[in-house]
Amino acid sequence: MSDAKANQKHGTVPSSSDGITRKPFPASKKIYVPGTLYPDVRVPMREIELTPTRIDGGEEPNASVAVYDCSGPYTDPAVAIDVRQGLEPLREGWIRARGDVEETGGVSSVYAQERASDPALTAVRFPNLRKPLRAKSGARVTQMHYARRGQITPEMEYIAIRENQRLEQMDAALAKQHPGEALGAAIPERITPEFVRDEVARGRAIIPSNINHPESEPMIIGRNFLVKINSNIGNSAVTSSIEEEVEKMVWSTHWGADTVMDLSTGPHIHETREWILRNSPVPIGTVPIYQALEKVGGRPEELTWDLFRDTLIEQAEQGVDYFTIHAGVLLRFVPWTAQRTTGIVSRGGSILAKWCLAHHKENFTYTHWDEICEIMAAYDVAFSIGDGLRPGSLADANDKAQFGELQVQGELTRRAWEQDVQVMNEGPGHVPMHMIRDNMTKQLEWCGEAPFYTLGPLTTDIAPGYDHITSAIGAAMIGWYGTAMLCYVTPKEHLGLPDKNDVREGVITYKIAAHAADLAKGHPGAQYRDNVLSKARFEFRWDDQFNLALDPERAREFHDATLPAEGAKVAHFCSMCGPKFCSMEITQQLRDFAKQKGLDTEEAIEAGLLEQSKAFEEAGGEIYS
Amino acid sequence: MSDAKANQKHGTVPSSSDGITRKPFPASKKIYVPGTLYPDVRVPMREIELTPTRIDGGEEPNASVAVYDCSGPYTDPAVAIDVRQGLEPLREGWIRARGDVEETGGVSSVYAQERASDPALTAVRFPNLRKPLRAKSGARVTQMHYARRGQITPEMEYIAIRENQRLEQMDAALAKQHPGEALGAAIPERITPEFVRDEVARGRAIIPSNINHPESEPMIIGRNFLVKINSNIGNSAVTSSIEEEVEKMVWSTHWGADTVMDLSTGPHIHETREWILRNSPVPIGTVPIYQALEKVGGRPEELTWDLFRDTLIEQAEQGVDYFTIHAGVLLRFVPWTAQRTTGIVSRGGSILAKWCLAHHKENFTYTHWDEICEIMAAYDVAFSIGDGLRPGSLADANDKAQFGELQVQGELTRRAWEQDVQVMNEGPGHVPMHMIRDNMTKQLEWCGEAPFYTLGPLTTDIAPGYDHITSAIGAAMIGWYGTAMLCYVTPKEHLGLPDKNDVREGVITYKIAAHAADLAKGHPGAQYRDNVLSKARFEFRWDDQFNLALDPERAREFHDATLPAEGAKVAHFCSMCGPKFCSMEITQQLRDFAKQKGLDTEEAIEAGLLEQSKAFEEAGGEIYS
Repeated sequence: MSDAKANQKHGTVPSSSDGITRKPFPASKKIYVPGTLYPDVRVPMREIELTPTRIDGGEEPNASVAVYDCSGPYTDPAVAIDVRQGLEPLREGWIRARGDVEETGGVSSVYAQERASDPALTAVRFPNLRKPLRAKSGARVTQMHYARRGQITPEMEYIAIRENQRLEQMDAALAKQHPGEALGAAIPERITPEFVRDEVARGRAIIPSNINHPESEPMIIGRNFLVKINSNIGNSAVTSSIEEEVEKMVWSTHWGADTVMDLSTGPHIHETREWILRNSPVPIGTVPIYQALEKVGGRPEELTWDLFRDTLIEQAEQGVDYFTIHAGVLLRFVPWTAQRTTGIVSRGGSILAKWCLAHHKENFTYTHWDEICEIMAAYDVAFSIGDGLRPGSLADANDKAQFGELQVQGELTRRAWEQDVQVMNEGPGHVPMHMIRDNMTKQLEWCGEAPFYTLGPLTTDIAPGYDHITSAIGAAMIGWYGTAMLCYVTPKEHLGLPDKNDVREGVITYKIAAHAADLAKGHPGAQYRDNVLSKARFEFRWDDQFNLALDPERAREFHDATLPAEGAKVAHFCSMCGPKFCSMEITQQLRDFAKQKGLDTEEAIEAGLLEQSKAFEEAGGEIYS
Repeated sequence: MSDAKANQKHGTVPSSSDGITRKPFPASKKIYVPGTLYPDVRVPMREIELTPTRIDGGEEPNASVAVYDCSGPYTDPAVAIDVRQGLEPLREGWIRARGDVEETGGVSSVYAQERASDPALTAVRFPNLRKPLRAKSGARVTQMHYARRGQITPEMEYIAIRENQRLEQMDAALAKQHPGEALGAAIPERITPEFVRDEVARGRAIIPSNINHPESEPMIIGRNFLVKINSNIGNSAVTSSIEEEVEKMVWSTHWGADTVMDLSTGPHIHETREWILRNSPVPIGTVPIYQALEKVGGRPEELTWDLFRDTLIEQAEQGVDYFTIHAGVLLRFVPWTAQRTTGIVSRGGSILAKWCLAHHKENFTYTHWDEICEIMAAYDVAFSIGDGLRPGSLADANDKAQFGELQVQGELTRRAWEQDVQVMNEGPGHVPMHMIRDNMTKQLEWCGEAPFYTLGPLTTDIAPGYDHITSAIGAAMIGWYGTAMLCYVTPKEHLGLPDKNDVREGVITYKIAAHAADLAKGHPGAQYRDNVLSKARFEFRWDDQFNLALDPERAREFHDATLPAEGAKVAHFCSMCGPKFCSMEITQQLRDFAKQKGLDTEEAIEAGLLEQSKAFEEAGGEIYS
């Protein structure tokens, strides 16, 4: 694409909400579960209606299933959406009611002021800007601060309800699950608001919730909660428009992304981010150094603390919920990367390494850490302490550069906590299976149990085009071991910018990894959906099987590829085995046969068999040992 | 599809070899590594040529890489392929030279005789049938038999060479790998023919190699060798033709399937199998009860031992290399499945369970086990003892029905070994991550370390349409724990019959799982391809990165989706981050910068930095602890 064409494309903003995904999931409706402590807490869930089971000519109803829902108001047909207005600021009342924030006269970042007054940007600017809030002088407006002083916020009650996924309404028989192996985690049988508060106070969980992003629906990241996933979006200098990025954010949350990182590096980063934030029902993360670098024409050595600081304030005032900052990339670690197979593969890490070497100075985000914490505390931006030296190949896994940085991440975590700033730590990368657990163990130990947030890890390097899969293997394992949030990887990893299909593939793949981890940890009620879906599968309730799937559309499409007729949706077979060879159908016949003979319980079957099987006993009775 | 139409489709046989995949992999050529003990052993490998690294205006060559190759003669342009003739019988000389087989006058199964003399089948019959071989009276012609009497067969030398993947030619620096965690396995630094023999003699590995399938290239299944994968093909009564199934077999091996199971259940099972065997470079497995059921019109209760026995001989004489037989499904276990969430989900298991209940008799494959072993020993068909009671949902994982059967599998294994018959055991199914290891531990203990062959396991039930991924997670883990072969799962699992795209997706996904397991176990040289690819990635040798990938076509296609120009193949960035934000490019600049300053080793960089950084030391020198 030529530069002119690229710029034109980048300048495309949504002219209406027509291009935004709003289709609710099949057989699903949005429900809102009210709070008890806070009556204006209304926690959205998706309720999936099921069809009845047919038995003996009659019908037995199947209770609907409520599932965790990241898709925001977009999937509620009752809510009018106007992307040029943005979503309703549902948390605004709670934020203001705490009495510790003040409205600014306007944006206070120098850069943001320039952008706001540039008439050339009118066409791409979000049309309905609010005035930013900030903490009153000396106040810390973080969820950690409230938690530590014993306060249960509406956000915390919201989260407790959300995490329980209507445990109390689950059918007891179907809710049965295998006891998990929580590996040191301490997941309660039921999540209470007080438990949420306590975990946040200890730093073991974070609630990313910038006071300037009141549109976001509260969620929590911590290893005693459901494992979350993040999706990355963002244009690069090579491709994609603002309109596309907003839709990618909505699309990500539609399929289940719990947070979204905007990693844009092209032009209009500031404006793109504003559009995304105003329309995002989930927390948004960024890597501020990307924009800072853009501001100095892509020359890392020209970065300064002042410019970086202004960027942090610019983004904090827009409402970014967490910042990735690679403050653990210290000058002394840089030489350790020179002999690596793949050097430094983190963009932020390489930028800061280059700055350090060029100036022979320590990483300025490290030397200014306490000042950064002050900014974070004034808006409740959480840290996602970057792993700038993560391994980019198996060869570099778990080396001294990586673990050197992880130790510094621990030091930075403790210093942030001193200022009540919420923290999570980023982790690898490329790691073979047997070396994954060590990452988790060290992170827990060195970083005081702050939530771990990992990219994969990829368990082999040899499958570009399939790295959502190479990494889902590692992600599921490290999620089980205790990682709180998994950063998705799409099939395009290492190859190009993901499109919408890749985003969907990446999100679903990571929902699988996260859920597999929840099951292994034994999160209360985690197995319910599996059990309900398995029952539907066994009873040939095809529509229910599709509707309960993480991706109902694909399940239906795949089934219909060979058996498109509506009649096949109740058929007791599929095209895989055909009608005569369906084991599930034969099992059902077997059950019917047993029932017909009056053998409808296990004991009766055993008794009946023994009684009626004289012939059998003669031939092989000796097997009844 | 109407019945008439379906029959017409089923009757389609290959009229030429035009529809068969023959395209060699990019930048790859077939090489043949000769044997030492047996000069006529020629082990095929795929050699991938690499481009040179550009440095300082010059070039440094990169050695080519030899990889394990399952694709057979199809990817060797020097070999003429005629699917109506079949492949060259490369093992025939070895088999006959052992002097323990005799040529039969013709097929000896009653059913096969009927098929052979039915003029209506002329059009679908494979046109160049050979006369079957069988063991001379009293002889056991199994690889286990030879191994136990101390004989290293050509097959064993072939395998030793194949498993080493040209270890001796690997670049020492790039061959470095992390020590694995072999978890009780005993993988030598180098595979020798004697090691192969010893493992086969102990029953810890099998070489599926029916004397009537001399076209197959020897391979081994055991936990001290590379983890293998199986792909399932086969039509059902609903869809697909003989021509399609032959191509699916070739297609499977093209992408890397080590064995293929023909699970056909539609008409012309006998003829389809013949076509597949005569053209297959990999061992073929079947589930004979499927065909037996077809012969009695789909009514399990009408199955008889005689009919089943005839089916075994029919298939053994065609050359099937391993049979799945569900002899562990005992009458007493059947009632245990009645209260399960998903009953019996194995087709073979449900057929036999129904037979047991209908007759109140013990499973006839169990009561006739020793006779079955005699047949297996006369053709060297290996057992794949089926897990008819495997769990079909997480709810049923690791229950008493499943483990009851596994114990019987152990008993059957020992009885087969008494007759020198090679055995592997099939395993689950649907199992949450934390319950996977128990499957492996029990199988090793109860089944005397016979190779384990698992389907997945799927780690959650809620993602139909993505079960290649839900199961790859479990497959990689159980592969690490010691499973010797992984049965692939395609995206269509639970939904329909896989098409070619699904087969490719399933095979590549399982190559990933198997390779991740090889890395975790520390198989010698396993990390070489990862390291070579990572080096290519870091050096922006895009073509090499694609060509070293498990699926070069997809890697290239994904890259080219955003940057199709040829110039982009040497560009130091991709569309994911664009030119200014590429961390790998920045790292390279960083290395160049260090080099320019005379800091090209780690020590020099450290020394140089200390020397030149007076300014730095004043500001932050305290970090040099």
